[in-house]
Amino acid sequence: MTTSLKYASEKKGLGPGSLIHVGNVHQADTRITLVDYGSSHHEVRTVASVDDILPYREKKSLTWVIVEGLADAGIIETIGQHFDIHALVLEDILNTHQRPKLEEHHEYLFVVLKCLMPERGDFAILKEQVSLVVFEDFVFTFKEKADTLLDPVLRRLEKNRGRIRSRGSDYLMYTVLDGIIDLNFDIMDQLEETLITVEDEIFSLPTPILLEKIHAIKLEVIRMRRFISPVRDLTAGLLRCESGLIDPSTRIYLRDVHDHVLRIIESIETHREILSSLLEIYLSSISGKLNEVMKVLTVFSSVFIPLTFITGIYGMNFEWMPELKWAWGYPAVWLVFIATSGTLYLYFRRKGWT
Amino acid sequence: MTTSLKYASEKKGLGPGSLIHVGNVHQADTRITLVDYGSSHHEVRTVASVDDILPYREKKSLTWVIVEGLADAGIIETIGQHFDIHALVLEDILNTHQRPKLEEHHEYLFVVLKCLMPERGDFAILKEQVSLVVFEDFVFTFKEKADTLLDPVLRRLEKNRGRIRSRGSDYLMYTVLDGIIDLNFDIMDQLEETLITVEDEIFSLPTPILLEKIHAIKLEVIRMRRFISPVRDLTAGLLRCESGLIDPSTRIYLRDVHDHVLRIIESIETHREILSSLLEIYLSSISGKLNEVMKVLTVFSSVFIPLTFITGIYGMNFEWMPELKWAWGYPAVWLVFIATSGTLYLYFRRKGWT
Amino acid sequence: MTTSLKYASEKKGLGPGSLIHVGNVHQADTRITLVDYGSSHHEVRTVASVDDILPYREKKSLTWVIVEGLADAGIIETIGQHFDIHALVLEDILNTHQRPKLEEHHEYLFVVLKCLMPERGDFAILKEQVSLVVFEDFVFTFKEKADTLLDPVLRRLEKNRGRIRSRGSDYLMYTVLDGIIDLNFDIMDQLEETLITVEDEIFSLPTPILLEKIHAIKLEVIRMRRFISPVRDLTAGLLRCESGLIDPSTRIYLRDVHDHVLRIIESIETHREILSSLLEIYLSSISGKLNEVMKVLTVFSSVFIPLTFITGIYGMNFEWMPELKWAWGYPAVWLVFIATSGTLYLYFRRKGWT
Amino acid sequence: MTTSLKYASEKKGLGPGSLIHVGNVHQADTRITLVDYGSSHHEVRTVASVDDILPYREKKSLTWVIVEGLADAGIIETIGQHFDIHALVLEDILNTHQRPKLEEHHEYLFVVLKCLMPERGDFAILKEQVSLVVFEDFVFTFKEKADTLLDPVLRRLEKNRGRIRSRGSDYLMYTVLDGIIDLNFDIMDQLEETLITVEDEIFSLPTPILLEKIHAIKLEVIRMRRFISPVRDLTAGLLRCESGLIDPSTRIYLRDVHDHVLRIIESIETHREILSSLLEIYLSSISGKLNEVMKVLTVFSSVFIPLTFITGIYGMNFEWMPELKWAWGYPAVWLVFIATSGTLYLYFRRKGWT
Amino acid sequence: MTTSLKYASEKKGLGPGSLIHVGNVHQADTRITLVDYGSSHHEVRTVASVDDILPYREKKSLTWVIVEGLADAGIIETIGQHFDIHALVLEDILNTHQRPKLEEHHEYLFVVLKCLMPERGDFAILKEQVSLVVFEDFVFTFKEKADTLLDPVLRRLEKNRGRIRSRGSDYLMYTVLDGIIDLNFDIMDQLEETLITVEDEIFSLPTPILLEKIHAIKLEVIRMRRFISPVRDLTAGLLRCESGLIDPSTRIYLRDVHDHVLRIIESIETHREILSSLLEIYLSSISGKLNEVMKVLTVFSSVFIPLTFITGIYGMNFEWMPELKWAWGYPAVWLVFIATSGTLYLYFRRKGWT
Repeated sequence: MTTSLKYASEKKGLGPGSLIHVGNVHQADTRITLVDYGSSHHEVRTVASVDDILPYREKKSLTWVIVEGLADAGIIETIGQHFDIHALVLEDILNTHQRPKLEEHHEYLFVVLKCLMPERGDFAILKEQVSLVVFEDFVFTFKEKADTLLDPVLRRLEKNRGRIRSRGSDYLMYTVLDGIIDLNFDIMDQLEETLITVEDEIFSLPTPILLEKIHAIKLEVIRMRRFISPVRDLTAGLLRCESGLIDPSTRIYLRDVHDHVLRIIESIETHREILSSLLEIYLSSISGKLNEVMKVLTVFSSVFIPLTFITGIYGMNFEWMPELKWAWGYPAVWLVFIATSGTLYLYFRRKGWT
Repeated sequence: MTTSLKYASEKKGLGPGSLIHVGNVHQADTRITLVDYGSSHHEVRTVASVDDILPYREKKSLTWVIVEGLADAGIIETIGQHFDIHALVLEDILNTHQRPKLEEHHEYLFVVLKCLMPERGDFAILKEQVSLVVFEDFVFTFKEKADTLLDPVLRRLEKNRGRIRSRGSDYLMYTVLDGIIDLNFDIMDQLEETLITVEDEIFSLPTPILLEKIHAIKLEVIRMRRFISPVRDLTAGLLRCESGLIDPSTRIYLRDVHDHVLRIIESIETHREILSSLLEIYLSSISGKLNEVMKVLTVFSSVFIPLTFITGIYGMNFEWMPELKWAWGYPAVWLVFIATSGTLYLYFRRKGWT
Repeated sequence: MTTSLKYASEKKGLGPGSLIHVGNVHQADTRITLVDYGSSHHEVRTVASVDDILPYREKKSLTWVIVEGLADAGIIETIGQHFDIHALVLEDILNTHQRPKLEEHHEYLFVVLKCLMPERGDFAILKEQVSLVVFEDFVFTFKEKADTLLDPVLRRLEKNRGRIRSRGSDYLMYTVLDGIIDLNFDIMDQLEETLITVEDEIFSLPTPILLEKIHAIKLEVIRMRRFISPVRDLTAGLLRCESGLIDPSTRIYLRDVHDHVLRIIESIETHREILSSLLEIYLSSISGKLNEVMKVLTVFSSVFIPLTFITGIYGMNFEWMPELKWAWGYPAVWLVFIATSGTLYLYFRRKGWT
Repeated sequence: MTTSLKYASEKKGLGPGSLIHVGNVHQADTRITLVDYGSSHHEVRTVASVDDILPYREKKSLTWVIVEGLADAGIIETIGQHFDIHALVLEDILNTHQRPKLEEHHEYLFVVLKCLMPERGDFAILKEQVSLVVFEDFVFTFKEKADTLLDPVLRRLEKNRGRIRSRGSDYLMYTVLDGIIDLNFDIMDQLEETLITVEDEIFSLPTPILLEKIHAIKLEVIRMRRFISPVRDLTAGLLRCESGLIDPSTRIYLRDVHDHVLRIIESIETHREILSSLLEIYLSSISGKLNEVMKVLTVFSSVFIPLTFITGIYGMNFEWMPELKWAWGYPAVWLVFIATSGTLYLYFRRKGWT
Repeated sequence: MTTSLKYASEKKGLGPGSLIHVGNVHQADTRITLVDYGSSHHEVRTVASVDDILPYREKKSLTWVIVEGLADAGIIETIGQHFDIHALVLEDILNTHQRPKLEEHHEYLFVVLKCLMPERGDFAILKEQVSLVVFEDFVFTFKEKADTLLDPVLRRLEKNRGRIRSRGSDYLMYTVLDGIIDLNFDIMDQLEETLITVEDEIFSLPTPILLEKIHAIKLEVIRMRRFISPVRDLTAGLLRCESGLIDPSTRIYLRDVHDHVLRIIESIETHREILSSLLEIYLSSISGKLNEVMKVLTVFSSVFIPLTFITGIYGMNFEWMPELKWAWGYPAVWLVFIATSGTLYLYFRRKGWT
């Protein structure tokens, strides 16, 4: 279990709506990227302060502001003041232990969710909280750190001037959500490959290290489910959403995202079930190995113990032991050895123990 | 776990609605079959290109187009353009990792589901994705590969000119769905027979190979449930469907299909429960076998260990050991042997260990 | 698992509504019994063909037709034609792998359910499918075979001219359902008695045969639940049913049946839980027995092994072993034997192993 | 499992509404107590026959009739006739295998539930079925036997003339229900104490008797849940009940009862979960004990087996065995004994086995 | 299991609405603190009797009365009379075994919930029942004992005159609820840390003490869930609440609290699942250790038993045993020893047992 399961207790005792960043600080500085676009124009710039954003409010075109890095609460607060965003929303953006959710406000939609990314090497998941505040002409995206997550969207905006540029803020929101959610398919692929190797080992060599591995995967799957299952309510909420901010023609795209979320959740459930089954099989496999060990011990002991007893008899020092005098005594004892061990061996063989 | 549990991550990074085939390519070429029929006529032809289909749009009769093989995305795209099918629907047809679902569009219904077929030999399941686009006068069926799946329907259309020819596209859709869903009964039959042999073995010879077999069956059942349980929503959706495309008189047939789906799901649940129970029984059976082994070891050891100890005593070389001089010493020791072992044997017998 | 869990795959490939009998044939011939009654008259006759039934359509009195044996699909088809019963209903009557359900048609109600009967001897369940088609003045009952199932109802109709004769077809349907459902109480009684004996044995003598028995009972309970739980929807459907065929005054009787179904389902759930618990207890009990066995082995081995080692020492043939010369050597060794074994015995006793 | 889990199969074959007592007969005679009260008067009398009750119908005051003992079906039938109670209700009163439920009839409410009482000594539960028929001015209470269950209510009616006397039949019903349901808290207390002792023993001495005890408690908890969980629907039904028989001001009291029922159900679920956990812990504890036993056996055997082998070597009678002649042979062997056993002991100690 | 799981059976037999304190008495005296505040003023005083509160009813400002200590039922009764609080509400306040709930009354809202606090040292939870009666201008808070729970709220009221002072009683209620619920995050943090150490130990050293620890944590988590899960209904009820007492602008804050509750419940479920998994892993780990022990025993026994048998042979005293006379007999036997043990060692090594 890594520290990312940690809870937001850091903020306790502060009044609601007090703006400080809660969570691990991934980067100290904040980078603001602004994309302004329409069917016929497209402009990307990195802005130094919130003031540079304000002039775009006058424009009719759609403006997308990407804020990467949450350590500087002041920037978020300033944006909140200029765009009249509720204090609790700002607080939620800054608190990176948020539960995925959708909130409909009068002028904007607020969407917050976790972006899960497969970590290189072992099966493990990195997560980043992404928040979206979607106005009619403005979309804000808040991320914990600067990474390549939104690059595909940015590239599509830049290159092909097709669908995405001619559509509104709702379609941009959809594009970002779709990108984040589809990352989970990578994780499922990786999970599946890991499970295949685990299954192979469980029957051949059920070691404690394998047990630890199964447990670790199970924890990751449990965590993943915890981050994904509220997303179902989020996308279902977007589908039901009566807000004028979502165009009816965008609904079919949101339904597509919703289907993907359902598919991921079903896949997680499937894997959880398989993992539970693997734990049971591990135990059965261990017990089977024990059986094998015990059979060897039993056959060995049971065959030799009577023989050793016989040698013990003729190792006794009684004065009157007539067998010891017999010329054929020793060969006769060897015959007894062979007969006894042979009989016992056949007995155990019939029981299927050898 | 086979590769068919793999996820659709191949397409990630592309914009929504980009048409490429996602999934395993079962065949490279695409075969298009066209069936045009009415109460009084019936025509079957293989068409080379989409253009050959277009003239049938003028006709009043019902036209069924079967597209087998999805590698050539261009064909599906062309059909989409001519018949005004939404880009996301075309994308779903091409992506063979689809979740079974029903979508009501303005002019057509879109149905996608998995067709599961029992594989010869072991208990294992082959699947193929089948999509239906149902217009008033036109039905498109998209399949991953050319096989005999739809032959019964084609034959019925050709031979008996009864119900099916005089009814609309909704009834054709029902016939296709019914055929696909009823294939699952075969799988359930096969599953049941497999379980009966597993049950016999589990009590007689609980080997690790059996454990692997139970696990493999469980995985198949989990997979199967994953493909079938969304079909329940699909058929329930068809029953609730307000679209004018479904005639009220067809509803009773759809209810019948829905009942079959429920029956299959209940049967899958039943088998999952039985499989879980079998895993527990395997473990108990293994433990029982271990008990048996240990009883043998214990009885053998416990009977002979004291006897060997006695032989050890009289094998000692003390100068003053009066028993060794006695004439009846040796026979007396034999009496002790018999008495000790007899007593112990009776003791273990009374405990039920022999 | 008996063959009664088999699926209806026999019919696959035929068009919907094709009438052939699907399932085990319990009897080759079909027996038709007709009961015509009212507050003041009562007539019972065995009829040879469907034509003998038709005149009763003119009569105002209530006519109950009992068809026993489904091998002859022609009879059911003829009835269907004369009484305008939907082809799918007829098909459901003939297919004895039906899921219990209620269908409201324009002129009639269609009810199909399983009748479970305890089999003599072991705990096992026989089942028969019973279908009811309930018109205003006509009730059809279709059964797989001729047995005494409906005798109590027939006798009540014949003897006491009280409630049943003065009421309509809905009350007759209720009476038949009530009789079939209450048979389950017998099965629950028998199940409970079986469980009591199993519980006794599980603590005293947990043998593999007991394990097989628990598994067999579990399978029966799972099967039973599968047949009963859809009946809850059936009776709930009858309670909600808006059809004019059900008189409001009959509703209280149907609620009574519904309560019985709920009681049976709760009882099945209770027994499933008890059976799961018994499996766990079996495993714990087996493990406890193993502990007992191992303690005996350990105490025996651990007490005698050091003693045998000591005898081994003085059985060595070193020339210089002064103890062997001592006059009190042999008695001293005996003291060591007694002291060692006594100490070990007390040690194990303190551990609670003896 | 006691006979109280038995099912009501005794009545099968009788028509619905036939009045006979079903269940164990707790007492042969029937005692009828009548309480007539209002804000200003209060009268208690034991009545001999139903005729003595009838005059109270004329009175405006509230009359409470307590019928104890159900063996005499005639009395219940007579009451039913005079007060126009539906035959099925009378049947339900007489059948003591009833599922707790609420029925709203035109003139009265019918409530039936189980009263569970902790049995002295072991953890076990006695139950009694209590039925209430609540009219505007009349309340009938039917009990299986004469006991002290209703004494607190009777005493409250007699002594303090506060709330209860000035309120209607709905409040009386509430008082009786409240008394019966609160008895369950006693059972939960007792259950909890039993579990605490079981938990202590499970870690110190996991014996088969403890296993039996856990199983017995589990059965009781399962039974208890079966009787309580339908009561939730009963009290929820009373809260939703539109009948004029329930005054709006009584609703808050019924909500209080409903809260108690929820609290009991949650507590039962908690205890079921704890019991399941205890079973698992029992198994783990048993396995842990086995480990301990096996470690002792292994250490003992492994330390002495090589030593005994060495004594065996020098017990051999080869003519040419130079070591036997050595003066320091015997002491040297003792050094080997000490070194070998010491090394092995340290090895096992390092493994944590001693 | 501590006594805090005890049930409220103390009060049984008393009429509903009788006011006595039920539960553990945490402190004998009752402390009443009164806070009167508005945007521009703020007054805190400790009041001696209820009479000192009454004058504040005339004032327009918001008055918050904190009652700490419930032993003196008279105080609560007096408040109830003056403020017209329903007798059952007063009873619920005094009974500290209450289920968390929300009740909407005409003039006020009644909220009762458990405050869980992590206990120092081990993972264990202290709880205190907190009740809130929220009028338009008056808020009563009843607590079991005087502690620092509400200090953050009091301090915020005193210091910053921002949001909280300018808002109504609904916002005060929110602030108190938020404070109580957020304490659970601390418990989750502590729980998580405990689980991490447990996980480390379970793979390295699965001792019975660890088993006890896991069980103890599980009990705490089960208890915690029991206290938290009804809070979900409580906060959902506040969100749905139609009462004029809750201002629409407060709703967003309540939604925030509701989100926190959901987050805590999901976290509890996650931990329950992990704990169940840990129990299974403990068992598997124990079985793995047993395997290891048995392998050592088996290898030791199986290697030495045949050797000891050979020494036995040449320890026999037969007169005619030619090998004993051979000059190379003894060295030859040593070769046999080495060859046999070497072969067996290699055999076991190949099996992976050493």
